[in-house]
Amino acid sequence: MQAKGQHTIAIIGLGLIGGSLGMALKRAGLGGLEVVGYDKGWGVGGKAQRAGAIDRSARDPRSAVREASLVIIATPILGIRTVMEEIAPELPDGCVVTDTGSAKAPIMAWADEVLPDHVHFVGGHPMAGKEHSGLEAAEASLFDGAPYCIVPSVGAGERAVKSVMALAEVVGARPVFIDPQEHDTYVAAVSHLPLVLSTALFTLASQSQAWPDMAGLAAGGFRDLTRLASTDPEMSHDICFTNRENLLHWLDRFSSEISRYRELIQGDDEALFKTFANAQMDRETFLQRPQELRPVPAAEPDTLSAGERMLSFLVGEHWLRRAKDMGKVLEERRKLEREDLERRLRER
Amino acid sequence: MQAKGQHTIAIIGLGLIGGSLGMALKRAGLGGLEVVGYDKGWGVGGKAQRAGAIDRSARDPRSAVREASLVIIATPILGIRTVMEEIAPELPDGCVVTDTGSAKAPIMAWADEVLPDHVHFVGGHPMAGKEHSGLEAAEASLFDGAPYCIVPSVGAGERAVKSVMALAEVVGARPVFIDPQEHDTYVAAVSHLPLVLSTALFTLASQSQAWPDMAGLAAGGFRDLTRLASTDPEMSHDICFTNRENLLHWLDRFSSEISRYRELIQGDDEALFKTFANAQMDRETFLQRPQELRPVPAAEPDTLSAGERMLSFLVGEHWLRRAKDMGKVLEERRKLEREDLERRLRER
Repeated sequence: MQAKGQHTIAIIGLGLIGGSLGMALKRAGLGGLEVVGYDKGWGVGGKAQRAGAIDRSARDPRSAVREASLVIIATPILGIRTVMEEIAPELPDGCVVTDTGSAKAPIMAWADEVLPDHVHFVGGHPMAGKEHSGLEAAEASLFDGAPYCIVPSVGAGERAVKSVMALAEVVGARPVFIDPQEHDTYVAAVSHLPLVLSTALFTLASQSQAWPDMAGLAAGGFRDLTRLASTDPEMSHDICFTNRENLLHWLDRFSSEISRYRELIQGDDEALFKTFANAQMDRETFLQRPQELRPVPAAEPDTLSAGERMLSFLVGEHWLRRAKDMGKVLEERRKLEREDLERRLRER
Repeated sequence: MQAKGQHTIAIIGLGLIGGSLGMALKRAGLGGLEVVGYDKGWGVGGKAQRAGAIDRSARDPRSAVREASLVIIATPILGIRTVMEEIAPELPDGCVVTDTGSAKAPIMAWADEVLPDHVHFVGGHPMAGKEHSGLEAAEASLFDGAPYCIVPSVGAGERAVKSVMALAEVVGARPVFIDPQEHDTYVAAVSHLPLVLSTALFTLASQSQAWPDMAGLAAGGFRDLTRLASTDPEMSHDICFTNRENLLHWLDRFSSEISRYRELIQGDDEALFKTFANAQMDRETFLQRPQELRPVPAAEPDTLSAGERMLSFLVGEHWLRRAKDMGKVLEERRKLEREDLERRLRER
């Protein structure tokens, strides 16, 4: 039986992301919050508890979510649907469910099919990681300053969206609202394409006949560029599998870019120099730009409803007030996108 | 007039590499060594002296080399030939000349054409760098543990080869003997190809219509993979220009590798998983392997000749004794390479 004023967050999957989320939540030192965790790996729950990532280890996903206000599914992406099916019958009324998977379109579809109507699904994707996986690699600071994609389902209530936004902020990240298709094509470009390029560069070099000799010359640049080749292969596979079409699209565009560089290298010196010079300048701008995509509007004075106060265990009033206008922001964004789409269609 | 027992090393070009070499030489605290530097940039020589990279700033390349036992040309690669032409008339008898350029075949040809017969040219290429260039980025520890390619010219004497090998060791690097063609094709794979891929990935993403939105999602992986896009554009250009054919060869091979990944992603799940799993394992091996390519044989007791002692200002007896067998090693390597070549021709 849960104590009055006690709120529970359940984390299913206690690897790098799930474990780090737990640690970051605990770091925030929120009163009245209990973090319950489950991992199918033998002994992982106990380890997570000892590592301070969770307060209590549950014996199965169902019992983990039974009293949760917020459920975070942080398993490998291909396990998410199964977890949804397993926990669906036990999810409390009004419970908010989120995930941390790397492709949002399939996950939104699974949630729509599998989860009951009395819960709110808000997809999530913290853009943080390491090439090493597992609870051992988890740390409370993993999300500090990182973008955290938030993808509300059609049926998700405003409070649910706000609570996941608040979750992102509590763990130190920067919430970015985005729709599933946009998310999947953007991360294909800035996350999944780099993963494949990094691995392809490593396999190309390491499968070469001269590798034993070349390896001795490989310095910092090669190491950095091939870092992602050390990613957990299951995760790499699942990323390619679940975001296949977008990834193939960007692989093709990258091949064309390589052909363009090939011509530049063969051809005009001046153009080659300019290309490198522009890249250097643009990257400088990229590194210096304020890391704010679609910034959340500044807080306005308002009163919080009782229901909103209920969520303050997660967010604190400060964050909740900042989030107050999310409905308006989403509406505004949809309007801008419609206009943009119409404009592009006209320009064709 | 130079004091007896005083030896001079001249460094022409005091950017990231030249400046760091000076600092690393000074860090070694060798008695009786004077480091003279020259840089065509206004005020750079004085700055280098104040930064402790050199003992004395020369007013031109000629006066820098006039009393040098060892001359290190560390200018941008396309400036090397001009420096050789300029210093050629002033180089002392028996002087050792080396460089730090990123492609060795053209440099060996320039040295052959331009330098007088009474000096010894031994090409060099420390495999260390940063995306930032210039003296400001220089540091004494830049070469610690890094491979340092050594490419003796046909006419270079054994002592000259040993002194450049010793230079590599004194600055903290690991000497790797290699011939120019081998060097240029290997570095095309592990250094110049990564540079082009990194820049191409950055330009592809940053030229995309969605970049303002995508940039907000770009996390650590994208930053690491595009780090080399911040390389000094002149250097990037010169690398492509001077090692063009090898780079184009590896760009083509990379394109084929991308096509292979494309098929894997479209096709059999099992094969895709295995490819990622092998890459992860092989990279683990790569990271753990002893960083010894063609290791130098262990020291054997011997006596040093007077001429060898002369070089001890640079190397110290310990290193000199270790280096004693280089002639033998080079001979052994050539033999193995001949055998390998013959074997491969038979297997065709």
